[in-house]
Amino acid sequence: MKLSKTFVKTAKNISAEEKSINAQLLQRGGFVVPLMAGIYSYLPMWLRVLKKIEQIVREEMNAIEGEEMIMPALQPKANWEKTWRWEHLDVLFRFTSFYTKTEYALWATHEEIISPLMKNFILSYKDLPRYAYQFQNKFRDEKRAKSWILRWREFVMKDLYSFHANQEDLDEYYAKAQQAYKNVYERVWIGNETYMTFASWGTFSKYSHEFQTVTDAGEDIIYACEGCKVAVNKEIYDEQNVCPECGNAKLVEKKAAEVGNIFKLSTKYSDPFELKYVDKNWEQNTVIMWCYGIGITRLMWVAVEVCHDDKWIVWPESIAPYKYIIIPIWDKGIQMWEQIYQSFLKQWIEVVMDDRDESAGFKFKDADLIGYPYQIVVSEKTLANGENMVEVTNRKTGEKTLKNWTELK
Amino acid sequence: MKLSKTFVKTAKNISAEEKSINAQLLQRGGFVVPLMAGIYSYLPMWLRVLKKIEQIVREEMNAIEGEEMIMPALQPKANWEKTWRWEHLDVLFRFTSFYTKTEYALWATHEEIISPLMKNFILSYKDLPRYAYQFQNKFRDEKRAKSWILRWREFVMKDLYSFHANQEDLDEYYAKAQQAYKNVYERVWIGNETYMTFASWGTFSKYSHEFQTVTDAGEDIIYACEGCKVAVNKEIYDEQNVCPECGNAKLVEKKAAEVGNIFKLSTKYSDPFELKYVDKNWEQNTVIMWCYGIGITRLMWVAVEVCHDDKWIVWPESIAPYKYIIIPIWDKGIQMWEQIYQSFLKQWIEVVMDDRDESAGFKFKDADLIGYPYQIVVSEKTLANGENMVEVTNRKTGEKTLKNWTELK
Repeated sequence: MKLSKTFVKTAKNISAEEKSINAQLLQRGGFVVPLMAGIYSYLPMWLRVLKKIEQIVREEMNAIEGEEMIMPALQPKANWEKTWRWEHLDVLFRFTSFYTKTEYALWATHEEIISPLMKNFILSYKDLPRYAYQFQNKFRDEKRAKSWILRWREFVMKDLYSFHANQEDLDEYYAKAQQAYKNVYERVWIGNETYMTFASWGTFSKYSHEFQTVTDAGEDIIYACEGCKVAVNKEIYDEQNVCPECGNAKLVEKKAAEVGNIFKLSTKYSDPFELKYVDKNWEQNTVIMWCYGIGITRLMWVAVEVCHDDKWIVWPESIAPYKYIIIPIWDKGIQMWEQIYQSFLKQWIEVVMDDRDESAGFKFKDADLIGYPYQIVVSEKTLANGENMVEVTNRKTGEKTLKNWTELK
Repeated sequence: MKLSKTFVKTAKNISAEEKSINAQLLQRGGFVVPLMAGIYSYLPMWLRVLKKIEQIVREEMNAIEGEEMIMPALQPKANWEKTWRWEHLDVLFRFTSFYTKTEYALWATHEEIISPLMKNFILSYKDLPRYAYQFQNKFRDEKRAKSWILRWREFVMKDLYSFHANQEDLDEYYAKAQQAYKNVYERVWIGNETYMTFASWGTFSKYSHEFQTVTDAGEDIIYACEGCKVAVNKEIYDEQNVCPECGNAKLVEKKAAEVGNIFKLSTKYSDPFELKYVDKNWEQNTVIMWCYGIGITRLMWVAVEVCHDDKWIVWPESIAPYKYIIIPIWDKGIQMWEQIYQSFLKQWIEVVMDDRDESAGFKFKDADLIGYPYQIVVSEKTLANGENMVEVTNRKTGEKTLKNWTELK
């Protein structure tokens, strides 16, 4: 992509209301524009990051046999009444059609839709286990939409639902799903900061599992065991608590943001919707359901919160909007820049060329601000070291190395 | 994908309310499940088709310099009041937050959002032209949600907005956009049936351009010139009309469904939102806007309506959920099927294996119903013609040919 063609500009100033680091970095970088509190437009660079995170999550969900689908955001009142959540789920946006007087809810979660949907397909033990997931825009009527990574009113969520004949089968899958979640956090480079956390979930069971990433922007408090990468949420923590994995009593208090959760739905939804199967003895049983969520947009914010230096964003390579930026600083180099750029495009290497009519200083600052992992510079000095030699700056380490550009990947 | 693992089943019976061909074919095939009138869950095969159509449209929009972004579905009342559409756009879902009493509209169209957004980025003539587009779920409070391909309450739309300094620049781009639209229809195999159509668009200008695909399921009437592939919508047609391209007076009346449109917004939105730029003489001018829409889900329905034989769907290769299905009919062939399947996966050839415990007759019927472009059968008979020889049936022509499977692509 050539920057002279893009409609986006980095911002000099941002709204004074934005307090968190990621909010400031992302607005300055031209990644997002706020529309209302908790509601944002995603500009092209941000959309590229979103798609990459989605793809990482998709690959991990496919690896544990998840099948991707999409359920509607508009949902009928009747389904939500069946589980008593029409009145009681306070984050549900509810409204009525002007014409038909039909009452709708906007999707906050999808248990009320997938449970009856699966009745079309799960009939006998031969149809179990099954795993379905989706990426969907999710809407929540939050009291306060504060601090960018939290309490959004519109955001992207991945939710996977698993359906099992019995607890043993579920336990086996549950272990796989936990591993898939860990893989996701590793791949977006927040694995080190992320703890599998025991938390309460009053409605359905004694506790749920969350994944919490340590960051000052978080609104949760966890008690973490450094050895096991396991933690206990403050909600269920008392001073007698030890690490649930190793018994370690020295848990460390940390601020953290939730980046995933696993809910033990059990038969909470299959019961009211009568999602049953016939077992080998021709007896009817209720299907056991589990739900596994990852807030994709929240994961993006947290990745930014974790991956920045003392000034700007430093994108992990795996989710960077582009890997390389070519910064022309030498007028005579124009043919060479174009050659590198075109060659990269042909090899599907993700590259941006800053061909704008601006000073070199402006371009370097802009490149730092956006956070491309690698900056490429061609000059008489670099070429003095041999044909095709360019300087590559690693944004994370600041290290500058001379490289033959034809060998870059 | 192995069919023994998927949660979806083809349906024996479908809801009696569904009258149109595509509704019946898609429900029978397990592509969609209705949730409410005009609102559907997309199952895995259908999602694959959706993603392929999106990708075709994305490539064509990128080729005319479109930059992909995403704007929110939840939108503030204030923006819609500015254009007088809060009260007057009757398909707008409107509702109020329980907590904050904020009034929202659900996205029916995005002019009210992109016009003020672009004020951040378009300042001078140097920032023009620019082109931004998105794929977004769109919501409409329709009086009647009838006939599957029309009048949906929730659907996917691509909308591209172009921003220009003057009419000449726009005209040049407009021609490119028209060609890009034609490319899209060619690539989803409905090019032959699709006409660029002159239609009314009362609010903003004398007429707009639509793209209309001839089908009995359509709810529009067009008068078509077979030579030019151009038509006039009944709304603005009178008996004196001739083809706007060649003057041909013999226009033929046809039923058609709209699969794309181009709206001449001009300064209708840039005026109220004060989207202006400074020209070379340091004078302020209003930006000229144009809007180009394609209903992605509607395009899918229309493709099904056009691409079926007298019984079932016949997917065009370009948008088929999978290209090949392997149908095992010979118990001893199991190793060979698995070898073909694994080899295809490694080469990224899209393939389904019907490894279910069902009869050959059931599997052939199911494969016809889903509409995979090619069916592969291995048997003693095919192997008698040489090692690796299989029978490939072309679903469209019915033609069966013996082929060496290692040469399939």
